Amino acid sequence: MPQPTLYTILSPALLHLYKVTDAIVVVIDVLRATSTIATALANGAREIIPVDNVERCMQYGKEIECITAGERDGQVAPGLQYGNSSFEYPRNFIEGKILVLTTTNGTKLLHMAVAKGATEIITGAFLNLSAVCDHLIAMKKNVLLGCAGWKDRVNLEDSLFAGAVVSRVKEHFSIDCDSSHMAETLYKTAKDDLYGFMKAADASHYHRLTNFGLERDIRHCLIEDQANVLPQYKNGRLVI
Amino acid sequence: MPQPTLYTILSPALLHLYKVTDAIVVVIDVLRATSTIATALANGAREIIPVDNVERCMQYGKEIECITAGERDGQVAPGLQYGNSSFEYPRNFIEGKILVLTTTNGTKLLHMAVAKGATEIITGAFLNLSAVCDHLIAMKKNVLLGCAGWKDRVNLEDSLFAGAVVSRVKEHFSIDCDSSHMAETLYKTAKDDLYGFMKAADASHYHRLTNFGLERDIRHCLIEDQANVLPQYKNGRLVI
Repeated sequence: MPQPTLYTILSPALLHLYKVTDAIVVVIDVLRATSTIATALANGAREIIPVDNVERCMQYGKEIECITAGERDGQVAPGLQYGNSSFEYPRNFIEGKILVLTTTNGTKLLHMAVAKGATEIITGAFLNLSAVCDHLIAMKKNVLLGCAGWKDRVNLEDSLFAGAVVSRVKEHFSIDCDSSHMAETLYKTAKDDLYGFMKAADASHYHRLTNFGLERDIRHCLIEDQANVLPQYKNGRLVI
Repeated sequence: MPQPTLYTILSPALLHLYKVTDAIVVVIDVLRATSTIATALANGAREIIPVDNVERCMQYGKEIECITAGERDGQVAPGLQYGNSSFEYPRNFIEGKILVLTTTNGTKLLHMAVAKGATEIITGAFLNLSAVCDHLIAMKKNVLLGCAGWKDRVNLEDSLFAGAVVSRVKEHFSIDCDSSHMAETLYKTAKDDLYGFMKAADASHYHRLTNFGLERDIRHCLIEDQANVLPQYKNGRLVI
């Protein structure tokens, strides 16, 4: 039997080039949506509802008992309660609760994958790297690694994560995809010191976030398997 | 005075994210359009007219005295005279002649850059790496390194060339662009054996072309400065 295929999509603006309908789509938004999602679910959040704008997030806050969260330009968005940092969602706060999270790039890509009829959608970040890889290997289905990027531009951290996945699962897939090889090469170069690599390359996102004093957040988002759960998107919610 | 900016655009489908109007656009289609363009001009071709389809190429063949060339699926396209290999354009054949060349990815990107009002358009490949870099440094203008890719998918060889340019010119530009850093990392990893790297990564284009027995062509297209001229697009023609 032929192996399933794996492709890396470096920007949401390239998603249309790939066949989504028979694939598992891994939504990757390392800084910080999919890192926060893994953390909140690992710490016992009942479910996470990803929404694409602040107004919709506030609306949920009026209709159901939930935590509303999201940032714009690195600050908690006006009208919402919390931000995008993993550190805001420890177990003693988030356990058993519903988190309604608005993010820009990650949520947009997730909704695009839904609209295009993805077989299954999961979210990935370094914090849940092993859970993602183990699942992809076990499922034996075609995979699309979807990098959320930044306003459709390619970014370093999402590409690095895609490369980490490729390096772990490649024996199980047929990979005729230069983006995957590029991502893997990047990851191999960087893996011994992901933070140092990001800093040395002056990654645009690194730069943007450290300007808001979030170095600690970035370092955390680059740690493997600290929130090793598998968030799956079902009926408009992310659950494990 | 602030330094000019430089961005790498890994696919034509991402061109719309960048400001083209005040930039020099470097069209990169290493396998093989921009390699062939450099070679033919270095060997004395009077000018090259890039066209985006076979019919238009044939039409030129009827209207002016020229060589018509282009391939589809690795073979000389029906109705045209020659293919896309540099080896088809030695000085004793091409000197003083007009070459009308149809390619898919490179020509498409070039015409997109024209339509978006690029200040200046040049073509780049390893064969004319130094000429491109020297020009970019001398001009002190904003630069967009435009990778032609393959049907809008990112490819290895064009990204590698962008990385080669970044590594050579970066001191002269402000580079807030993760794609540029990724391309440079890729190039640094690969530069001691570009061909070996392409082969090891089983680059999709490498694969496609070697299936047509064109290993010699690929090796040639990865040599630096063997046709070290600066093709510039002016009034519908590439000239040096």
